[in-house]
Amino acid sequence: MASSLEGTHQLFYGSFIYSKSLDQLEYLHDAAVAVSSAGKIVAVERECGGKDKALEKISSRLGWGSDATTGFSKEVYETGEGQFFFPGFIDTHLHASQYPNVGIFGKSTLLDWLNTYTFPLEASLSDPAKARKVYSRVIRKTLSHGTTCAAYYATIDVPSTNLLADLCLAAGQRALVGRVCMDQLAPSYYVDESPEASLSATRESIAHIRQINPEGDIIRPVITPRFAPACSAPLLTKLGQLAAEMPGLPIQTHISENKGEIELVKELFPPESTGAKDDSYAAVYDAFGLLTDKTILAHAIHLTESEADLIQQRKAKVSHCPCSNSAITSGAARVRWLLERGIVVGLGTDMSGGYSPSVLEAARLAALVSRHVAMGGDETAKLSVEEVLYLATRGGAEVVGLEDKVGSFEEGMEWDAQLVGLGVLGEDGQVEGQEEEDGNVDVFGWESWEEKVAKWVYNGDDRNTRAVWVKGRLVHERK
Amino acid sequence: MASSLEGTHQLFYGSFIYSKSLDQLEYLHDAAVAVSSAGKIVAVERECGGKDKALEKISSRLGWGSDATTGFSKEVYETGEGQFFFPGFIDTHLHASQYPNVGIFGKSTLLDWLNTYTFPLEASLSDPAKARKVYSRVIRKTLSHGTTCAAYYATIDVPSTNLLADLCLAAGQRALVGRVCMDQLAPSYYVDESPEASLSATRESIAHIRQINPEGDIIRPVITPRFAPACSAPLLTKLGQLAAEMPGLPIQTHISENKGEIELVKELFPPESTGAKDDSYAAVYDAFGLLTDKTILAHAIHLTESEADLIQQRKAKVSHCPCSNSAITSGAARVRWLLERGIVVGLGTDMSGGYSPSVLEAARLAALVSRHVAMGGDETAKLSVEEVLYLATRGGAEVVGLEDKVGSFEEGMEWDAQLVGLGVLGEDGQVEGQEEEDGNVDVFGWESWEEKVAKWVYNGDDRNTRAVWVKGRLVHERK
Repeated sequence: MASSLEGTHQLFYGSFIYSKSLDQLEYLHDAAVAVSSAGKIVAVERECGGKDKALEKISSRLGWGSDATTGFSKEVYETGEGQFFFPGFIDTHLHASQYPNVGIFGKSTLLDWLNTYTFPLEASLSDPAKARKVYSRVIRKTLSHGTTCAAYYATIDVPSTNLLADLCLAAGQRALVGRVCMDQLAPSYYVDESPEASLSATRESIAHIRQINPEGDIIRPVITPRFAPACSAPLLTKLGQLAAEMPGLPIQTHISENKGEIELVKELFPPESTGAKDDSYAAVYDAFGLLTDKTILAHAIHLTESEADLIQQRKAKVSHCPCSNSAITSGAARVRWLLERGIVVGLGTDMSGGYSPSVLEAARLAALVSRHVAMGGDETAKLSVEEVLYLATRGGAEVVGLEDKVGSFEEGMEWDAQLVGLGVLGEDGQVEGQEEEDGNVDVFGWESWEEKVAKWVYNGDDRNTRAVWVKGRLVHERK
Repeated sequence: MASSLEGTHQLFYGSFIYSKSLDQLEYLHDAAVAVSSAGKIVAVERECGGKDKALEKISSRLGWGSDATTGFSKEVYETGEGQFFFPGFIDTHLHASQYPNVGIFGKSTLLDWLNTYTFPLEASLSDPAKARKVYSRVIRKTLSHGTTCAAYYATIDVPSTNLLADLCLAAGQRALVGRVCMDQLAPSYYVDESPEASLSATRESIAHIRQINPEGDIIRPVITPRFAPACSAPLLTKLGQLAAEMPGLPIQTHISENKGEIELVKELFPPESTGAKDDSYAAVYDAFGLLTDKTILAHAIHLTESEADLIQQRKAKVSHCPCSNSAITSGAARVRWLLERGIVVGLGTDMSGGYSPSVLEAARLAALVSRHVAMGGDETAKLSVEEVLYLATRGGAEVVGLEDKVGSFEEGMEWDAQLVGLGVLGEDGQVEGQEEEDGNVDVFGWESWEEKVAKWVYNGDDRNTRAVWVKGRLVHERK
């Protein structure tokens, strides 16, 4: 939805919360954030002494008057009781094309799940009407959950991949959109004909995305080898060359999700054939020039120490997908272990290996899965509320290469934000001022802000995301 | 809310789904269920050939005419597209008094969590106004999530425990209401003064509950030793005697939640002092006459083989609380292992060790946690969608001793049910006939019923629970 405020400066006033560091949140109250018409945060004022004074302070500081060309929009967004602005979520890994299958996986694990549930659905999206229906829904759905930026896999089909990019741009959701490359170990009805065909289709999609959004501020193409086993060595070689040719482009793929998959990689890519430094999964991508500081590696569950070292040296990033990893019994990724090794980690919903469109659910599951890792003996594995929110915002921003633009509310950043509203109960135990129930976060009134945030992380859903902005543009609002 | 249909017979028509066995759901479509004014299912007809014929069939079979005294209510509840009736959920373990703390537990584990978060809150509910606010909310909240029966722990305070029973009765939610017994290892501000005082307060609460609902069809008292470490041997002795004196009464307590707790039990209750058969946790309850076929044991995570045998021999039941067990890092209960040993298992939200008021969330987490158990090596540990729904309904019914009354839609059972509605998408990718988003379950149209149910289990929330009945009475409806 287009914002009526586009083209004017905006002022946001009230409570703002964002990650200051991995384990600390910054809480600003009685604060004001001024956002320029270009969507940039141009001023942050603390302890304003009320909204009117905030407006005054900011106006005088920025020299912004009240006329139509230089002024603020008349409407000031102000947080009410139990409300705060929070950075938009970054979903660092999801398959837009698999959205209709969320929740459907039975008792399967990765390799049979692909053949039973996933490939037939992805193949069917070459039907443009179906693709439009599915992609429209996934964008609307993820926006409603506060996802301001998503790293999407589409399918091998170029026109519908391009349609996904078109739809993201129109909806105003930042996105990496990847046409999936896979020329082997896939069913005959859903496979690239050759490495050459795969590369040429990829170039076609990249060209389209660059054409619709030349600045790349909202939509960027991403080189997307599905995962090593589904790509021949010649295809991986070509994709590595493409990455070298276009060094600005991000790369996304999967790594070390499932033990059977890891064995398969060892069989398919023995080091003597690839020239890799060893027979590890990470070394395969590295051998083909696909392990770079622009690479997003989904899962990374069963990595060895030396793989983690290699990933850290190459500055590749990890997308942790706890909902998926638990649902299809892949394993419990050791996030603390990755972080301690200096690897950047963000969160991914990984629909439809993951069942939920919500990064908040991924954050919740990241906390719970980290406790299962801790049950294995390492108490330090536990992730706090603060830490999972960091992963969902700043961590994710770094994973997708936007750490200088989004993830916090500091001056110079862009306004990718959500207005979060919690249910504040009255004396009668009902939510004040609302006839109908509005979500599952109940604030009784005696909670600290830290506790309110914890309540949101554990019981929040899309009902608590009241409005969403990307680069200053209002892209979702709950009625 | 009171149903306008109270006192008349009711007809429900359309799709009905319930557990036939642990791993199989029954799907009835074009079916009709007649519910007597007493809330009992008096007829189930399959393949009716439409609603009118269903009404005709049932009327003639039961000899029910259309006049006011013998007839059906005029309104027939009919399922629309993407809707079905499902048995109400049974929450076999939760602390009503801890509801305001859901989501707040930090990185704590059981014993420090109790002291830091739990005891201060519970103690504060001796304020009647606060108790009314909290208890009203927890009943309303759990009903809205489809919980038709809940096994509640209140606090040590008698008046507010009795208030909880009053409120459940008024709201029409079936409940076991337990006044918590604890006379040691608790803070001085929140502890029973003596075993005698604890017993007498318990009797007082039992008397109140029996007085307000003499038939015990909606509210029943439950003997509630908090957990062994919080009870002195004399108190456990007295409670065991009470259980023997009132053999119809259920008993609820905790067992084997946390390794530190298990060690504490060994220290506090050496077998030579209790006469227990060994130094296990289960043997302690058994020694005091508290391990019976009416006993609900929450958690049961770290049981030994011989404890499981003892529990099975005594026919005690287990409440599995996966949200809580993961959240406060207690462990991953082996549900398959319990079931294989012939132990009856139901689900509990265990608020506020658990963060969610939803038994559907507990079912989802039960599936996910079972996958973490499977990751440990035992592939058979995985629980299917069908199995977790069984635990949430029929399993739970058996845990609370209502297996002859609720949990399925067979003749002779009582109508404890929820109307579940999923979002059916139109061609445009929006939910049909609804301006506003309504939940996170998106049905695209090509899903089987099995797949629709899986989607509900993984993405459903209270928005999908459109109406809830207990014993034929409408107790919740979404506007």
